[in-house]
Amino acid sequence: MPYQLHYWPTIQGRGEFVRLALEAAGADYVDVARLPEGEGGGGSALGERLDDPEAARPAFAPPFLVDGDIVVGQTAAILLYLGPRLGLSGVGESDGLWTHQLQLTIADAVAEAHDTHHPISVGAYYEDQRDAAVQRAKAFREERIPKFLGWFERVLQRNPAGSQHLVGDTLTYADLSLFQLVDGLRYAFPKASARALAATPAVERLHANVKRRQRVHDYLQSPRRIAFNEDGIFRRYAELDG
Amino acid sequence: MPYQLHYWPTIQGRGEFVRLALEAAGADYVDVARLPEGEGGGGSALGERLDDPEAARPAFAPPFLVDGDIVVGQTAAILLYLGPRLGLSGVGESDGLWTHQLQLTIADAVAEAHDTHHPISVGAYYEDQRDAAVQRAKAFREERIPKFLGWFERVLQRNPAGSQHLVGDTLTYADLSLFQLVDGLRYAFPKASARALAATPAVERLHANVKRRQRVHDYLQSPRRIAFNEDGIFRRYAELDG
Repeated sequence: MPYQLHYWPTIQGRGEFVRLALEAAGADYVDVARLPEGEGGGGSALGERLDDPEAARPAFAPPFLVDGDIVVGQTAAILLYLGPRLGLSGVGESDGLWTHQLQLTIADAVAEAHDTHHPISVGAYYEDQRDAAVQRAKAFREERIPKFLGWFERVLQRNPAGSQHLVGDTLTYADLSLFQLVDGLRYAFPKASARALAATPAVERLHANVKRRQRVHDYLQSPRRIAFNEDGIFRRYAELDG
Repeated sequence: MPYQLHYWPTIQGRGEFVRLALEAAGADYVDVARLPEGEGGGGSALGERLDDPEAARPAFAPPFLVDGDIVVGQTAAILLYLGPRLGLSGVGESDGLWTHQLQLTIADAVAEAHDTHHPISVGAYYEDQRDAAVQRAKAFREERIPKFLGWFERVLQRNPAGSQHLVGDTLTYADLSLFQLVDGLRYAFPKASARALAATPAVERLHANVKRRQRVHDYLQSPRRIAFNEDGIFRRYAELDG
């Protein structure tokens, strides 16, 4: 049975962290909401599944993953579940926990990147919160991007197994997620992220290394990879970069 | 060897979710930064430990937990580690994953509660972002508190083992964390949370039930429980409630 990923069909969003793990491992999966509507796809079918009154353990929001009887929501929890099954969480409990800790910090950075364009309300338009967005984006560019990437740089530099990976000497979902975070920051904040990455060479190298892994490369070139756009988490608005 | 919890010594903050789990389980632990300075306590010693250049796996921010050779940061990852050891994550992989998923959603709500008073920058004073805070708090009160508490109400109502607990029929760290979230919301937004809780009776009952558990009760009455204050995550500013 292929894994079923349920996520919004027109954005990378948080679902992309799960897609990348499944793709990098060559796992058999279906991105359900991207199927034709006649086969259960589409955003409204996803919304209905999310609000299923029969679900004993409903998800708060997409993404959620279905694997037989298991239904799990929250991006980091999905990766916690998939990690050992896909061979993407290092070796043993200690590595698995460290991989998860890294993922949670990436999730924090992603949430902050989102809030640069929605600092007041997720329910309101960007245009109606642009002034606050400009202020929040400035703080994010000047304080938060360097702080997050600087920490990942230290993690890479201090890895006893070398700075090619965040955890030990093999690929984990934390590497894939850091690739995605950097990719998103480069899309949304091309100037600010170029400055930050100049000070974090190991992070920049990890991004390049992940990108040229065969399965990741093939995925990124395929129609399965949705392009960044201004409905997702990482949005390019010129007034928010600088 | 007692667990060592490292967290800011003058606030509940994110460390409180760990304190509650340790206290509710009657675990042997030391809240290191609350020791006298001569014994390694104090905020500056915590800062130094956080910036330890020798740490191969440094934490991004407090809290972090030390258990022998294991050092783990990120509140939800600490609870993931402690859960099975303290008997607070249900039965089996499926319950453990669900407990963690609930915790991650509580963490999202906590981050949003924080951002009501710091919508622009964590590095700037509240007074310098009050206008945006008033706007963000309005959206949080009107949309987000009801959405989060409504979801937890559904989770409780649909629990096949009954609405006394979020997971199965025993106490988990998710119950303790939901108690803390509700406690914080009641402190910071007394009017808005009273309205929301009127529509989520099972959530309100869970809060009351956790509060009267013997060990939790004893902890809350003890000097180990730091009072809510305006340096923490949940802050009472009259202009943000309504």
